Amino acid sequence: MADDGSNLVLGSAAALNRFCRDALIALGVPEADAAVAATIVMESDLRGIESHGLPRFEAFYVNGIKEGRIKPRPNIQVVSEAPAVALIEGDHGLGMVVGHRAMSLAIEKARATGAGFVTVRNSRHFGIAGYYATMAMEQQMIGLSMTNASPLMPPTYGSEARLGTNPIALAAPAADGQNFVLDMATTTVAAGKFEVALRKGARVPKGWGGDDQGVPTDDPKLARYGRHYSPLGGTPEMASHKGYGLSSMVEVLCGVLSGSEPAPIQKNWSNIGHFFGALNIASFRPVADFEAMMADMNRSLRETPRVEGADRVYVPGDKEREAKARHLARGIPLYPEVLESLRRVGRDLGVPLDL
Amino acid sequence: MADDGSNLVLGSAAALNRFCRDALIALGVPEADAAVAATIVMESDLRGIESHGLPRFEAFYVNGIKEGRIKPRPNIQVVSEAPAVALIEGDHGLGMVVGHRAMSLAIEKARATGAGFVTVRNSRHFGIAGYYATMAMEQQMIGLSMTNASPLMPPTYGSEARLGTNPIALAAPAADGQNFVLDMATTTVAAGKFEVALRKGARVPKGWGGDDQGVPTDDPKLARYGRHYSPLGGTPEMASHKGYGLSSMVEVLCGVLSGSEPAPIQKNWSNIGHFFGALNIASFRPVADFEAMMADMNRSLRETPRVEGADRVYVPGDKEREAKARHLARGIPLYPEVLESLRRVGRDLGVPLDL
Repeated sequence: MADDGSNLVLGSAAALNRFCRDALIALGVPEADAAVAATIVMESDLRGIESHGLPRFEAFYVNGIKEGRIKPRPNIQVVSEAPAVALIEGDHGLGMVVGHRAMSLAIEKARATGAGFVTVRNSRHFGIAGYYATMAMEQQMIGLSMTNASPLMPPTYGSEARLGTNPIALAAPAADGQNFVLDMATTTVAAGKFEVALRKGARVPKGWGGDDQGVPTDDPKLARYGRHYSPLGGTPEMASHKGYGLSSMVEVLCGVLSGSEPAPIQKNWSNIGHFFGALNIASFRPVADFEAMMADMNRSLRETPRVEGADRVYVPGDKEREAKARHLARGIPLYPEVLESLRRVGRDLGVPLDL
Repeated sequence: MADDGSNLVLGSAAALNRFCRDALIALGVPEADAAVAATIVMESDLRGIESHGLPRFEAFYVNGIKEGRIKPRPNIQVVSEAPAVALIEGDHGLGMVVGHRAMSLAIEKARATGAGFVTVRNSRHFGIAGYYATMAMEQQMIGLSMTNASPLMPPTYGSEARLGTNPIALAAPAADGQNFVLDMATTTVAAGKFEVALRKGARVPKGWGGDDQGVPTDDPKLARYGRHYSPLGGTPEMASHKGYGLSSMVEVLCGVLSGSEPAPIQKNWSNIGHFFGALNIASFRPVADFEAMMADMNRSLRETPRVEGADRVYVPGDKEREAKARHLARGIPLYPEVLESLRRVGRDLGVPLDL
């Protein structure tokens, strides 16, 4: 957690949101799209997901636009459609803008038919998968979101990376507002977890990944770039074929269903595919009943007797919700490298960085 | 694998299917329902999933009906419906019959709207989740299937079981017929894996589960009944919160969305919830293009360079497809306890057991 915060500079979420928005506008992104993208970037920092958001703003999005990998004004289009589904062409736009558009369409379809499922081709990095799932949750729906990513993980028994960290997110509302928000990479850890350890000067558990020869390492730099991330499960004995299976499931829905091409066969990784789903709770049963039962289930999980030495049992989303409340109240802690990166962006684009 | 087969009795799939069907009919199940249930039971043995199917036929299904936990003639009904979704009341019928009905409805809806998602309440054990996913796959759809189950797994940091092995299955067709069929428990292993080790007199890895005090054990009997199954990931350091998160996600869709009540709050475990989905590939893009890309992706995964000592890299579904071909050709190997159990059922119900 960054928020021991002792000697980190704090920035206000609102000010940092404006900064990101204005930087994107300066790069030629239309104002409404820039606002959407900035909000999704900041939501990562608010939720305390240090592997995404501001730490990646310059490298992934600003440089992506400057170097021509991301189009600031893409022509996002619905390629094919049926009452409950659609395929969207992302035209190499900012993944946040493409993703927001696609999830909005899924929600609209779910309102009409009970379910909306949208797959996306030719997009770019879309930030945290969980954001899109919570968009549906805020409409009294169950939201689902996935994306494929560049190859970093060998399949079980393989020695070369073929699949990405391919996250799965699912969000569902609870009556007490302590909602269920699962947002997880299907590798043991996401790439950003190594970057967090690097920023903190920490070692990592050896089971998380190997160096470029696949030798397990506790050096976060070797593991970050070694392209030998372990699938969830870790080892074949501990069922790493399931993490590999989930990652390839995400490829089926994001890479193959969309035609974006899945990572194992994409020559030069650049076309990202996403998958979004919304289920309209009211089409199944009364929303209030659902939300009350969600709260009851979550409470039972949190109240599970604990193993010795453990402080709490969490429900997916608890840590992020609490981090968000803290960060809204006190500000977002910024590591020196992150602050420096934002200052560089500000100078370069002529956008003042107020914290 | 059972099929070293050296000293196991072999039975023909067709004969065993008839036996199961006739046994269910003798128990009062209508003929058409008995045929569906028998086929799903046998599909498990055909695919080599030794944790389900015939080894559970007596204990789960025959005794379930005899002891009144399962109704042979349930009143399965659609409770609520929208163009792309439905909620089904299972009325405590055989899970295979309820599940088949629910997935058939999901497929019908997907044909009309592109997507069909059906949640089910008050059902019973439905066998292998993968069967229902492949029902959709055979209709040129992506099929999804999940079920909740009795509590066997403590949440990460918890010391008492709150969630089941809650499997996730997804199936997608490939042009070469070597289809993608993921079918996995969200615990490190399913309950049946301990039973398989018991039948074989083998030990199990200590990370799979603990005894009834939570102490890790390699004794399959202690682990089977210890209700301390590890979530996929194994330990907190290796991200067991993700296996726990996936298991609770399955509860949201099976237990809460259906109103069947999720395992953490169900007083006396008896009402199982399922969740089924179908996505009509043709509503997104040409089926032939999708299936060709699936085959290409699968091939790339299988051809990944291997770690030393490894024979093959598998795609989800490969092992089961090959087992099915073998079992159809040579017969299904029956462990002595399984054979004895079937003989007992046959004597009891007056149904001859021909192998």
